[in-house]
Amino acid sequence: MPKTLIKVDLSQSAYDNDMVHNRWHPDVPIVAWVDPGDDFVIETYDWTGGFIKNNDSADDVRDIDLSIVHFLSGPVGVKGAEPGDLLVVDLLDVGPVKESLWGFNGFFSKQNGGGFLTDHFPLAQKSIWDFHGLYTSSRHVPGVSWAGLIHPGLIGCLPDPKLLETWNAREAALIATNPTRVPGLANPPFGPTAHMGRLKGEARDKAAAEGARTVPPREHGGNCDIKDLSRGSRVYFPVYVPGGGLSMGDLHFSQGDGEITFCGAIEMAGWLHLKVDVIKGGMAKYGIKNPIFKPSPITPTYKDYLIFEGISVDEAGQQHYLDVHIAYRQACLNAIEYLKKFGYSGAQAYSILGTAPCQGHISGVVDVPNACATLWLPTEIFEFDLMPSSAGPIKHIKGDVQMPISPDK
Amino acid sequence: MPKTLIKVDLSQSAYDNDMVHNRWHPDVPIVAWVDPGDDFVIETYDWTGGFIKNNDSADDVRDIDLSIVHFLSGPVGVKGAEPGDLLVVDLLDVGPVKESLWGFNGFFSKQNGGGFLTDHFPLAQKSIWDFHGLYTSSRHVPGVSWAGLIHPGLIGCLPDPKLLETWNAREAALIATNPTRVPGLANPPFGPTAHMGRLKGEARDKAAAEGARTVPPREHGGNCDIKDLSRGSRVYFPVYVPGGGLSMGDLHFSQGDGEITFCGAIEMAGWLHLKVDVIKGGMAKYGIKNPIFKPSPITPTYKDYLIFEGISVDEAGQQHYLDVHIAYRQACLNAIEYLKKFGYSGAQAYSILGTAPCQGHISGVVDVPNACATLWLPTEIFEFDLMPSSAGPIKHIKGDVQMPISPDK
Amino acid sequence: MPKTLIKVDLSQSAYDNDMVHNRWHPDVPIVAWVDPGDDFVIETYDWTGGFIKNNDSADDVRDIDLSIVHFLSGPVGVKGAEPGDLLVVDLLDVGPVKESLWGFNGFFSKQNGGGFLTDHFPLAQKSIWDFHGLYTSSRHVPGVSWAGLIHPGLIGCLPDPKLLETWNAREAALIATNPTRVPGLANPPFGPTAHMGRLKGEARDKAAAEGARTVPPREHGGNCDIKDLSRGSRVYFPVYVPGGGLSMGDLHFSQGDGEITFCGAIEMAGWLHLKVDVIKGGMAKYGIKNPIFKPSPITPTYKDYLIFEGISVDEAGQQHYLDVHIAYRQACLNAIEYLKKFGYSGAQAYSILGTAPCQGHISGVVDVPNACATLWLPTEIFEFDLMPSSAGPIKHIKGDVQMPISPDK
Amino acid sequence: MPKTLIKVDLSQSAYDNDMVHNRWHPDVPIVAWVDPGDDFVIETYDWTGGFIKNNDSADDVRDIDLSIVHFLSGPVGVKGAEPGDLLVVDLLDVGPVKESLWGFNGFFSKQNGGGFLTDHFPLAQKSIWDFHGLYTSSRHVPGVSWAGLIHPGLIGCLPDPKLLETWNAREAALIATNPTRVPGLANPPFGPTAHMGRLKGEARDKAAAEGARTVPPREHGGNCDIKDLSRGSRVYFPVYVPGGGLSMGDLHFSQGDGEITFCGAIEMAGWLHLKVDVIKGGMAKYGIKNPIFKPSPITPTYKDYLIFEGISVDEAGQQHYLDVHIAYRQACLNAIEYLKKFGYSGAQAYSILGTAPCQGHISGVVDVPNACATLWLPTEIFEFDLMPSSAGPIKHIKGDVQMPISPDK
Repeated sequence: MPKTLIKVDLSQSAYDNDMVHNRWHPDVPIVAWVDPGDDFVIETYDWTGGFIKNNDSADDVRDIDLSIVHFLSGPVGVKGAEPGDLLVVDLLDVGPVKESLWGFNGFFSKQNGGGFLTDHFPLAQKSIWDFHGLYTSSRHVPGVSWAGLIHPGLIGCLPDPKLLETWNAREAALIATNPTRVPGLANPPFGPTAHMGRLKGEARDKAAAEGARTVPPREHGGNCDIKDLSRGSRVYFPVYVPGGGLSMGDLHFSQGDGEITFCGAIEMAGWLHLKVDVIKGGMAKYGIKNPIFKPSPITPTYKDYLIFEGISVDEAGQQHYLDVHIAYRQACLNAIEYLKKFGYSGAQAYSILGTAPCQGHISGVVDVPNACATLWLPTEIFEFDLMPSSAGPIKHIKGDVQMPISPDK
Repeated sequence: MPKTLIKVDLSQSAYDNDMVHNRWHPDVPIVAWVDPGDDFVIETYDWTGGFIKNNDSADDVRDIDLSIVHFLSGPVGVKGAEPGDLLVVDLLDVGPVKESLWGFNGFFSKQNGGGFLTDHFPLAQKSIWDFHGLYTSSRHVPGVSWAGLIHPGLIGCLPDPKLLETWNAREAALIATNPTRVPGLANPPFGPTAHMGRLKGEARDKAAAEGARTVPPREHGGNCDIKDLSRGSRVYFPVYVPGGGLSMGDLHFSQGDGEITFCGAIEMAGWLHLKVDVIKGGMAKYGIKNPIFKPSPITPTYKDYLIFEGISVDEAGQQHYLDVHIAYRQACLNAIEYLKKFGYSGAQAYSILGTAPCQGHISGVVDVPNACATLWLPTEIFEFDLMPSSAGPIKHIKGDVQMPISPDK
Repeated sequence: MPKTLIKVDLSQSAYDNDMVHNRWHPDVPIVAWVDPGDDFVIETYDWTGGFIKNNDSADDVRDIDLSIVHFLSGPVGVKGAEPGDLLVVDLLDVGPVKESLWGFNGFFSKQNGGGFLTDHFPLAQKSIWDFHGLYTSSRHVPGVSWAGLIHPGLIGCLPDPKLLETWNAREAALIATNPTRVPGLANPPFGPTAHMGRLKGEARDKAAAEGARTVPPREHGGNCDIKDLSRGSRVYFPVYVPGGGLSMGDLHFSQGDGEITFCGAIEMAGWLHLKVDVIKGGMAKYGIKNPIFKPSPITPTYKDYLIFEGISVDEAGQQHYLDVHIAYRQACLNAIEYLKKFGYSGAQAYSILGTAPCQGHISGVVDVPNACATLWLPTEIFEFDLMPSSAGPIKHIKGDVQMPISPDK
Repeated sequence: MPKTLIKVDLSQSAYDNDMVHNRWHPDVPIVAWVDPGDDFVIETYDWTGGFIKNNDSADDVRDIDLSIVHFLSGPVGVKGAEPGDLLVVDLLDVGPVKESLWGFNGFFSKQNGGGFLTDHFPLAQKSIWDFHGLYTSSRHVPGVSWAGLIHPGLIGCLPDPKLLETWNAREAALIATNPTRVPGLANPPFGPTAHMGRLKGEARDKAAAEGARTVPPREHGGNCDIKDLSRGSRVYFPVYVPGGGLSMGDLHFSQGDGEITFCGAIEMAGWLHLKVDVIKGGMAKYGIKNPIFKPSPITPTYKDYLIFEGISVDEAGQQHYLDVHIAYRQACLNAIEYLKKFGYSGAQAYSILGTAPCQGHISGVVDVPNACATLWLPTEIFEFDLMPSSAGPIKHIKGDVQMPISPDK
């Protein structure tokens, strides 16, 4: 049995676990050292540290203080890893906590984080998903069930001081272009809710004031929310500090490309079984800036897709220039409209797109002025036939089940 | 044997074939009528009407007048199809012209159309790809070979006058924001090089002056350049005019997601074997705005991917807000840098990403401020092992073969 | 365009084409020579040389003289290939004759060849399958349609005299154990209907009297009827005579594992586009006795199977010892019984199992006394839902369409 | 968390666990009852009840008394299930015991059970396979590693008295044809080592004397050893006794088609998470004799196969009539010969074929007199390139690691 290097107790506050942190900073002390070739287990909180509950109210989604996320387990040091190396990480397996076989998906209020379709779904909503072995289903979203593509939404190595400074500088510059925007353009360092792991006292306060927030993906990987970086895959991470300092969390039982609901995928507490190795000087040898990875041979084989197209003309009919973000939003809205014809509420349809193993493809990015994006919806996850026919759609979903919603206060 | 409704003679100018047109306009006369349930064959020119030649110079790519594209075969009318219906199109098969078993891929000069990475590859370049049964390879890009995912880059129904007006208005508004930009933000109607099929005289001139250019994908589908809309797939197109008026062209032997090289995929002349049917009132029944489709059961099963990540921080280090276009560009640049370590020139690497069955995924679009996009490179297409190892990359490609390049005049 | 080395004229008797032969013998003269690295096209008759017609009578299936089969195109010589080498054959593409877009499937009468389930289907029956681009369907078997997994049923190199003698000796010994069995245990050489290609006169007569029949697969490959040896695959054949002498035919548009209907798959006339190469001394280097191959990246991706089990207890309840043949027969009979519940006749169900891309797995061969075999039926080929449910099966097939049958004379 | 209905303690003899049995008999008392729709967990011993140890000697494989197998957990009763129903079983997940992350594979001595290739490997041998999350590798078989296709080798419902009598009668008749054969043609009931669960006293002795051995697959499923009946699949079992009486065991971390090594797959102790439901009268409704099943969407996606052919001519050159068993043996022997060229011992190669997710296809069963079978070897499981090349094979395996072997006493 592999050794569990970091344990979490779901009944304890994540702030009280000193092998957890929620900011990126080179000074976060490494909490465990391993050798290249070792395999070991790391337990993690869900990204909110247990704030979101398994109930039928979206109040927690509405009320959460997003400055507390993400609670990461680590950093783990790998002996001999030095700046410029590649850290090879095998995700040998990933799973939920045995005593907590459920996850949540939600939409943040536009007043508190928002999301990809926040103009269409501006209020806090939530759905709870239960895990049945390899499968998941929800009491709030009927008619669908699928096998999970389990993965860590967030994993990466500690930045060095220079990289951290680069991050903070460029994000501050972006915020400065519209500092009062709601939701904000980016999240600056914020000391009060920072959890700096084992760092204490003044050193802690200084690092907390500088520590990069964990929300965006960056050069080191971080919060990539890539559904295919799943159990069984092998990832090559850039190393910036001695030992690498690998941290991780934000586990997802399943997610669609884009994690469009932001809160988020099917979020859960869980564990990762990892094996690590080092490629000396790998960053220069292979010209690596961001992590690269090889996907897993064990992934759901859903392949009967219904594919929706979207172009970069927005909901108001305005033309944008090769904007894939808008094109993908249109593809998603098109899919939601389609699913409503079978009886789903818009929120339920949105939740399906955010949580099921949907693919989002950048299909065309050169045919000015329209980008074309496609959303691939796996039809096998539905209990009924979702394809178009001359008879027209059947309302299989009766509307008697709805997702909890919480108006802004 | 199915009937060939539209024939093309590659030795004849596309302008002399009155079953071909290169603008979208409701007045382009339907050239052939079929019944629902019929299957038939349509031949097409390559998108440039034969301008690009099978040789070792990129001068043609540099010098092409892009106002002539795309030469489409059609429109075909389907009896009984009316506005609001869905036209069901089975792409029973698609292939190259038997006497012309090659295709081209290129980069336009930044002065003449540009492309996704035009700032990195500002000059005209070209590679020629030969077809060997199901496979393709290039004398300009060594070390790779793969089975084609053959598809029409462009297919869709004629717009009605109102939709046409919407297109022209919104694109004109975009152009007006920066009318002198090179390359242009969009392409306005342009009568002189318009080919309006069988429309003649004043009616032709009026329509030519209004006809929407074929470059962007739009609500009707059109130039979507979706590699997965391939032979064997079934597409549901919105119908706007009586009979539908289905036109198509821009056949690709293979393409990566995004068609990032713009000129373009592996472009070829060829034929489509189609079957059509109608779902009456399907647009409203299913809430359809853009086409939807079911992919083919016959596609290359490449699945051993090496995946590159990119985030929305541009080459200069500037932070952008959830910009998937920039994130995908970074993922592509990361892949190019990687391939160069194995001996490819940047242009060859770029050409591989544009032509091979690469996937481009919208992996994360909510983690402010960074979008995350991934480029999936199938490793099976390489003659050598492309994975990272502790030994470092081997220069399998010796640099003795290069892609033709033509400096701007 | 690749050169067509062997042409066939479907309106001409196969006996009149001297680039065709129907027996294996080292003296059959090579009709065309190619170099390693060459690619070229070979046309072929269907295996019966056109005896079976596109009509609604099974009389031809009943009356055929099976001593005439299989009409093979070749032999092709590869310069430099010598005994002990491996001939590397890329099946670049395979397809039907453009003017003959149909194939046949049938059951031979038990009096004339029989088949896998001849005790259950003792009379001649036939179904005709039309090709629609990548797809096939039948006017005799409603409710199913699928993409073809096109392949040559028969391909291999000429034997040398010693190997030929081995074949004839061991098969004669088997026949001798029950020489009057109907159908026969094997087919001995038979001169009168032999077609020895360009061999003429006495030499022809001698070789015709010795030439091995083409029915069974043997060390050289030959009539393997392996559905996965399909277009896009690469095969490594043992070489026994100078030049190899590669011959081929018996093209199938589609077939299930086992080709259980014997007459046969969906049989057609067509063409192959091949590329050849040689591995010197490859047989000894790799310890090769029978051909090995790498399957194609382009195959139908059907994967939603319903799987039927069978064990080696026969229809009469008798126990056999680890007999996979009987176990697979039971799995097939179980599937037929199941399909009948949806309205198919037994013959139609049998025809589906013989022609669709079903898999037949040897699941267990050590658990004495029962072998276990499984038949994998792809559910996507059916127009209706084939899975079990608590509501029970629905008779989607109304019984108004039947397969032609011809009683023995 | 689902409830664990049956627990096993690996440190306790399986004979002392009264929720375990090793014979099929209608009188074995049901140990737990569930409702349709329930999900629950069942723990199991490995098939030998812990006899085979994680060490480097094959003595245990040589010395095992095979009359003790298989130790099954159950029977579980499903309320309302009656003879003639179908029991729908979802294998929600299956896994190894957390404290016992290893499995064994071996060959029995020809004197004690033998196996598929017992004439070639007549002595007891063993390899130990360690589990690393989703993957397995062996200290006795270098150079290979793969993701497990985890499944129960044995699962099924209790027979009714009539079915049991049928089994015993037909197997006794077979044994009677050669009662002294080594290994035996089948295994008759054998009371002394029978474990009849909670049945005690005279009832136990009577049932023990009649109880069918668990080795062969039969109408109820049982020891099918079908690798694709894996976690995530749904199985439909015939019901013969009130409540069904579902028992299971013989878990495999991985296995090749045929389980050719007999001892066996990668055998392990573990657990199953199941969900059950009932289709009333399903056996008649669907014409079911043997179980049918739908495979899992979560299976390893290995697909780059090297395929070996075999025909029904045995090692001595003797011709057999359409014997798939012999044809598959030849395909396996051909693969072993090939693997030896890369440095493997024959035993290691045999072990790979028995444990890796190899496919065994019944490719042709009508081309008299030769059946054709194919063995599909996934090349991705090897650390080196296994394909043929003109350079010839490289001895990647140095021969310094061997599998334990134990001569007969």
